[in-house]
Amino acid sequence: MPSPTPLSGYPEWLPAERAVEQCVVDALRRTFELHGFAGIQTRAVEPMEQLLRKGEIDKEVYVLRRLHADEPDAGTPEPARQLGLHFDLTVPFARYVLEHAGRLEFPFRRYQIQKAWRGERPQEGRYREFCQADIDVVDKDTLPFHYEVEIVEVMAAAFAGLPLPALRMQVNNRKLVQGFYRGIGIEDVAAVLRVVDKLDKIGAAAVEAALVETVGLSAKQAQSCLQLAQISGSDASVVDRVRALGVHGDELDTGLHELALLLDGARGSIREGFELVADLRIARGLDYYTGTVYETQMAGFEHLGSVCSGGRYDALASDGRTTYPGVGISFGVTRALAPLLSRGLLTASRSTPTCVLVALANEDSRGASGAVAAALRARGVAAEVAPAAQKYGRQIRFAQRRGIPFVWFPASGGETSSVRDIRSGEQVPADAESWLPPASDLRQQVVVQDATG
Amino acid sequence: MPSPTPLSGYPEWLPAERAVEQCVVDALRRTFELHGFAGIQTRAVEPMEQLLRKGEIDKEVYVLRRLHADEPDAGTPEPARQLGLHFDLTVPFARYVLEHAGRLEFPFRRYQIQKAWRGERPQEGRYREFCQADIDVVDKDTLPFHYEVEIVEVMAAAFAGLPLPALRMQVNNRKLVQGFYRGIGIEDVAAVLRVVDKLDKIGAAAVEAALVETVGLSAKQAQSCLQLAQISGSDASVVDRVRALGVHGDELDTGLHELALLLDGARGSIREGFELVADLRIARGLDYYTGTVYETQMAGFEHLGSVCSGGRYDALASDGRTTYPGVGISFGVTRALAPLLSRGLLTASRSTPTCVLVALANEDSRGASGAVAAALRARGVAAEVAPAAQKYGRQIRFAQRRGIPFVWFPASGGETSSVRDIRSGEQVPADAESWLPPASDLRQQVVVQDATG
Repeated sequence: MPSPTPLSGYPEWLPAERAVEQCVVDALRRTFELHGFAGIQTRAVEPMEQLLRKGEIDKEVYVLRRLHADEPDAGTPEPARQLGLHFDLTVPFARYVLEHAGRLEFPFRRYQIQKAWRGERPQEGRYREFCQADIDVVDKDTLPFHYEVEIVEVMAAAFAGLPLPALRMQVNNRKLVQGFYRGIGIEDVAAVLRVVDKLDKIGAAAVEAALVETVGLSAKQAQSCLQLAQISGSDASVVDRVRALGVHGDELDTGLHELALLLDGARGSIREGFELVADLRIARGLDYYTGTVYETQMAGFEHLGSVCSGGRYDALASDGRTTYPGVGISFGVTRALAPLLSRGLLTASRSTPTCVLVALANEDSRGASGAVAAALRARGVAAEVAPAAQKYGRQIRFAQRRGIPFVWFPASGGETSSVRDIRSGEQVPADAESWLPPASDLRQQVVVQDATG
Repeated sequence: MPSPTPLSGYPEWLPAERAVEQCVVDALRRTFELHGFAGIQTRAVEPMEQLLRKGEIDKEVYVLRRLHADEPDAGTPEPARQLGLHFDLTVPFARYVLEHAGRLEFPFRRYQIQKAWRGERPQEGRYREFCQADIDVVDKDTLPFHYEVEIVEVMAAAFAGLPLPALRMQVNNRKLVQGFYRGIGIEDVAAVLRVVDKLDKIGAAAVEAALVETVGLSAKQAQSCLQLAQISGSDASVVDRVRALGVHGDELDTGLHELALLLDGARGSIREGFELVADLRIARGLDYYTGTVYETQMAGFEHLGSVCSGGRYDALASDGRTTYPGVGISFGVTRALAPLLSRGLLTASRSTPTCVLVALANEDSRGASGAVAAALRARGVAAEVAPAAQKYGRQIRFAQRRGIPFVWFPASGGETSSVRDIRSGEQVPADAESWLPPASDLRQQVVVQDATG
């Protein structure tokens, strides 16, 4: 069989790269759990009728078929009963909440770190298989506003533990935007949002033109929309600048009040490497958002688009009797990491978890070397025995090639056991029942390469 | 939208059940890493030509199709270039080794914990989506026998950390069986293996009949095969009993020698709850095994079949120039856990990671309660603030319903802060900068229900 070639859009990592991704996933999970989010997993597939409910992205869904399902005896399921791979974690979560509502406690705080699939054209930042890390808080019937602030706090805490470039979270409020649009006489709010969402891509002039020509706004209305979209800032002055546009209404007032509360409430989360700004151009194309919306840019990687997005929705799901409002955000693990890994900006301190290679004097002493490794493992030190009783120089080179920092020489003859740091060459007597490596060597660490170096 | 119904064959867990699965996966991962296995993940899809190489199970593969791929402009890929979901982790790992061989260090020790999919008829122990945890050691050209012993040691160490019923690992050796068959004049070894593999299902008489009628053995040959298959034991007496059947040959000798080495070398792994026996009926249907083969039964759940299987293969993969021999084993996380979870035999100590609910005196003190929660989290204690400033009795019941063991009452007025263990009702003054819960309450724990209780 010839060497296989990579599949475009399906990134796959070497062991050291995967160690970085695993560290990131572990750090996210730890923060989410410290904040009381319960981890769940949903199956990879959903009925097509669930996946197509939002309409827009149906082209990107992968449909499943059993290889011989089209044989005469098997029958083909109706299209709606076919299964497709989920393209995000929100649709399956909404279905999970409805399906298990009777056995969940609300408000329900959950995190979910899983892969999703979209059959779109691959490019940097867009993959056919990608990992996402979502948190949501979902309640029955009503959900207090304070959770919209908490989402920022939790993600800021999570980001603080990740080896990423500086992040800038941009927030907006749907009530604000909608109230403003309605205040100037716009009825089809969704149509305007879809056009304004393209501001970064096509520029102000094209957006203004499209608002007039496609959506049918007056020139004045279009101009007001653009003025609103161009407001940004990190404090309450944003509210003043919206007020200065002279539009009024209850919904707008509520939105402005919530935006000010959010900026104020989440102020404590701002630190070096994490910025929070109100940016009133942030629209998020999806219809279901009804309050705060979030997007996040990674410094130097703005071309990826947002690496962490979400918002408040008044109806994540509904079974006709009960409605489930929620607020959530989704961090694109693959979208954020793949460009950093493929550029070599992140790597692991070694390609294996092994901290100590236990050398082998001869094949008959494999049991003795194995006992040393077992003693180290019992105290949490990852250890393996050399594959073969080669000359010690070759065993040391075996460790070197993997970045294993220590080689252990078991007691033999009259000599006591010793351990060598193969980076410095320093070798000291050591007892497997008590020796510990420096904390920084115990586990694989993420190493951030200086992009300018 | 009406309440969705479960999909048969796609088990999905409530938060407490998922916490159990996560604990199991974490324990497996920890053991694998302590033994120097590097974690990798492969993409969920492989080209169909890869998936169908083994022939037998092609009916079970899920083929992927983009929803609109059959539109005129898209073209349909040739069958071999279509993608399917992987049905195990061995086929993708073999492809990964070939694809990345130049950037891996050999012998390569890897673990892989991922989902796989098979479109077969669902029943207990067989799922359409399931999680597997695999370890393999793969080398170039040759692989020493001692890794066949190590696989038993690593899995025994992993099992010691899992909340499972007693496990019984059964081993056999392909060289032994093959050498024996050839020694009595059988040429089509694979055909005999396939029939003997059904011994548990169809019984000795039916196997003997099939060996004669279908495979074409003489009555004497068939009887010898059955005699061999019925030998089992946990020490070298097994070797003597094979010898007593009076068959000879180099390959048989090698197999007997290896089996004795394995039983002897892995003796130290036997403990209460983990038994290791040579069972010469274990055949493993797959053609590619060439040395030790492993299967594992879970006490009381023998009807599931093996929950942990694998073996030695001389050619996991080959690119024509280099051959990659290996040895590996696969633990069926879903197969083993699903029956225990769905019977309620395993559960978690609580349904959320939250250890402390910080009570809320009034909505204005949300910041103060948030600061307490932050101080607890900074020292690794999962905490959340009550959703609303209801009466304390209701806040305590909120914690009770989730199994959260502690409620924190922040300082207010002249009173100092205090923490209540809501199980005992005991409430003591406490400082968020120094208080810690008992270690057993810090994280969610797996609770094993006594099946007889």
